[in-house]
Amino acid sequence: MTKPGIQRLYLDDLAVGACFHSGTYRVDADEIRQFARQYDPQPFHLDDEAARDTLFGGLAASGWHTAAITMRLLVDGGLPLAGGVVGAGTEITWPRPVRAGDELHVETTVMEIAPSRSKPDRGIVLCRSDTLNQHGERVQRSDARLVVFRRPV
Amino acid sequence: MTKPGIQRLYLDDLAVGACFHSGTYRVDADEIRQFARQYDPQPFHLDDEAARDTLFGGLAASGWHTAAITMRLLVDGGLPLAGGVVGAGTEITWPRPVRAGDELHVETTVMEIAPSRSKPDRGIVLCRSDTLNQHGERVQRSDARLVVFRRPV
Repeated sequence: MTKPGIQRLYLDDLAVGACFHSGTYRVDADEIRQFARQYDPQPFHLDDEAARDTLFGGLAASGWHTAAITMRLLVDGGLPLAGGVVGAGTEITWPRPVRAGDELHVETTVMEIAPSRSKPDRGIVLCRSDTLNQHGERVQRSDARLVVFRRPV
Repeated sequence: MTKPGIQRLYLDDLAVGACFHSGTYRVDADEIRQFARQYDPQPFHLDDEAARDTLFGGLAASGWHTAAITMRLLVDGGLPLAGGVVGAGTEITWPRPVRAGDELHVETTVMEIAPSRSKPDRGIVLCRSDTLNQHGERVQRSDARLVVFRRPV
């Protein structure tokens, strides 16, 4: 959704190396369990006690929940693209789990810009989005290929 | 959650080329909008009318919603691993959107098996999971590196 006060960027406005910072998102245990019940109902995402003896060592958010929260932060101004944040594909790693009480934010860097050969109104932009917790530890890295439109003439 | 009747597999039980098929999951417009409101509030995921003039051409599920549904299908028996479905990272593409009314299933193939050098109780298994709609069209491909445990001795 377009928010007042955020300048939305077209392909023409982007440069390799440009950086963007999102707001923050606080994750609580209820939301971790709610997401897990619906989409990833495994013990380490549902119950702190049951998670103790797993490789997570305690309640941890589903990686897909971390990815979804990252998307929310990008859409809410963390990556202000005029046509929205539309991914063709992405590579994701989760170097450490998200825990209840974590406060996340996303730092995004433009890595490559490739104008489309077949569709002159757009290009593909490779963006690296690191999702960090309140200690500055990376909980997710996503290298995404995004469809970005040129400024209408 | 372990379901009765599903035999859960350890690293020792897997072979390159092994295939697994999930059950099905029907996606409706309400769920598409609900997920989008929470995690990906962009017009093409929220409103069919607003989506008409976008590159989606109509209401489409967030790619992260498709990924979350895929995970649910894997956890519910689509990939019956003894220690659960635990990803270290993944590459995802979304070749076509998921629409309201689509019925999805997942076909997973074991691509590579690499025993851990440092941790003898586990290995990393590269699995390709294709998410298909009711027409057999691929809506997502995910190449995931999963942590899989050896059978306890």
